[in-house]
Amino acid sequence: MSTVSRALEARTRRMGKQTLRFRLTPAVVAAAAVVGPKEGQGPLGEYFDIIKQDDLLGEKSWERAESRMMAEACRVALRKAGAALGDVDYLIAGDLLNQITSSSFVARELKLPFLGLFGACSTLAEGMAVGAMMLDAGYARAVLVAVSSHHCTAERQYRYPTEFATQPPPTAQWTVTAAGAILMATKGDGPAVTLATVGRIVDAGIKDPLNLGAAMAPAAAATIRQHFEDTGRRPDDYDLIVTGDLANVGKEIAAELLSREGMELEDRLFDCGSSIYDPSQGVEAGASGCGCSAAVFTGYLMHGLLTGRYRRLLLTCTGALFSPTTYQQGETIPGIAHAIALETQDAPGQ
Amino acid sequence: MSTVSRALEARTRRMGKQTLRFRLTPAVVAAAAVVGPKEGQGPLGEYFDIIKQDDLLGEKSWERAESRMMAEACRVALRKAGAALGDVDYLIAGDLLNQITSSSFVARELKLPFLGLFGACSTLAEGMAVGAMMLDAGYARAVLVAVSSHHCTAERQYRYPTEFATQPPPTAQWTVTAAGAILMATKGDGPAVTLATVGRIVDAGIKDPLNLGAAMAPAAAATIRQHFEDTGRRPDDYDLIVTGDLANVGKEIAAELLSREGMELEDRLFDCGSSIYDPSQGVEAGASGCGCSAAVFTGYLMHGLLTGRYRRLLLTCTGALFSPTTYQQGETIPGIAHAIALETQDAPGQ
Repeated sequence: MSTVSRALEARTRRMGKQTLRFRLTPAVVAAAAVVGPKEGQGPLGEYFDIIKQDDLLGEKSWERAESRMMAEACRVALRKAGAALGDVDYLIAGDLLNQITSSSFVARELKLPFLGLFGACSTLAEGMAVGAMMLDAGYARAVLVAVSSHHCTAERQYRYPTEFATQPPPTAQWTVTAAGAILMATKGDGPAVTLATVGRIVDAGIKDPLNLGAAMAPAAAATIRQHFEDTGRRPDDYDLIVTGDLANVGKEIAAELLSREGMELEDRLFDCGSSIYDPSQGVEAGASGCGCSAAVFTGYLMHGLLTGRYRRLLLTCTGALFSPTTYQQGETIPGIAHAIALETQDAPGQ
Repeated sequence: MSTVSRALEARTRRMGKQTLRFRLTPAVVAAAAVVGPKEGQGPLGEYFDIIKQDDLLGEKSWERAESRMMAEACRVALRKAGAALGDVDYLIAGDLLNQITSSSFVARELKLPFLGLFGACSTLAEGMAVGAMMLDAGYARAVLVAVSSHHCTAERQYRYPTEFATQPPPTAQWTVTAAGAILMATKGDGPAVTLATVGRIVDAGIKDPLNLGAAMAPAAAATIRQHFEDTGRRPDDYDLIVTGDLANVGKEIAAELLSREGMELEDRLFDCGSSIYDPSQGVEAGASGCGCSAAVFTGYLMHGLLTGRYRRLLLTCTGALFSPTTYQQGETIPGIAHAIALETQDAPGQ
């Protein structure tokens, strides 16, 4: 490559300040969702690949159950694509547990070269961004991106022992028991990943780990706004602007923040955390967890992309980057969001 | 780009099964180490940029002190390069704390787009691999890679409250109090990052969190062997084969495993965990922690590269991917290692 073409290449992969542009448009070749019983009983139940009948999956700990869900999601995604583990170059994974042990145990089982991420509930989009870079630039031909969360592992780690049966406030969100896996490749059919906007942290000053929607909403709004600024696109270029797990409280805040900047998203704004459960399921403000956006994207939204209901989606996964140590020490909860543009092959401008 | 040149591009960035090849050879423009008092008193003290006089840095918690060390390391690296925060496109960071809160708080302070990683003590090499991909493929012009560990935050999180003053066994390693930051860019002088070998997990069946060297050594040996297989290079192509924090027990195991495969590294094998402290400092088998390889690389080894003492290094950072929950549940400790090739501009074959 000449110096000129190198410089040109460098220029065309950056858009604005925070956005990565994938010129070879890596495809989501297959995606799979494995969920717990409560998620299976929710309004999106029919879209998930596997619904478990109990939260333990027959294992002796919830942690083992969570790892097993993630490994199963990886295997189902491969099966749907007619691919084998040997076709995959890298596993990119993360979860909510301390030291992302669910992901590490899956990496051990699948024996794939492994990049571990932590982005709390933003990890799916973070992983898709890293995976798309690897594919687009030619470092890999196929990657698996996987994330998980489990209500019982997360609740006892982040808040109270589950046996306490504490009364949650109306702002609380129910951590989803689910794993999602995405097989992305440079060759193969499926929605293309065309852009990724990597988020900055926005800290809204929230100190309450039972009000994460409010902690993450300003970060979601900032990343969505930055995506449009960087790319020159407009909200109506997308069929849906998806947020990960703001739930009802956070979604309203994000909509209000975007509205103040002149973006009236209305029905175009779709939050996974407000959608995976029915209000009758006793989940307060809605859902949260890496598994929330993962299951809703790999199940429901992928179905919409594959059936032509959606042609362009902006998937904005939102994360609250706190630990029990930090909130007990009085620190506020930093929020982050990363956004991924997904487009079907017949989307306008493709 | 034509289809042919796209295919060529894709081919030339992959080497063998697990190795990424950086054709535009992103440079380590500057690196900085901020360490605690014990590390400053060790044999490599003179190579560190800042030596703190107390572990708390005047903060009210060790966690705050750790974040502050990492933020300082970032600022010192920028200052050494004559660069400003505005010149940096992305922060790529990780640490040992639950939910990598040290890194997230630094990302909040520096206001940079942020990719959070978790690779335990392998995080420096993981971050350099992701950063080099972003630079080499043109997604970014400059990235900061930062990692940290703190003896007091890690001990109480992974093992016992520090006030217990438990007697460690001879296999134990002392978690380093240090942060390292690396400014990498497509333009600028400094050692080039030419290759990265992303590791697979190797689980040696170790269950003892006070014997991490043994848990990580087989992963280090596997990644080093894979690096040579993927690239066709030989050990004597490198002045040093560096391991992150195997310490004395793990280093001996790794040397033995590599020797069985016909690789006699002898004095060419250098372990950061065996080098940062003097045996008189009461550290049992040696040192561990993200900050161990980070401080030794950004301080001592970078000095060797900049002064011409070394022309080619293979930096192999090693991680133990466990949590207190997993070992208390009887799980074994998975090990991982990622390797980065660093070369000065006058290295043979450049």
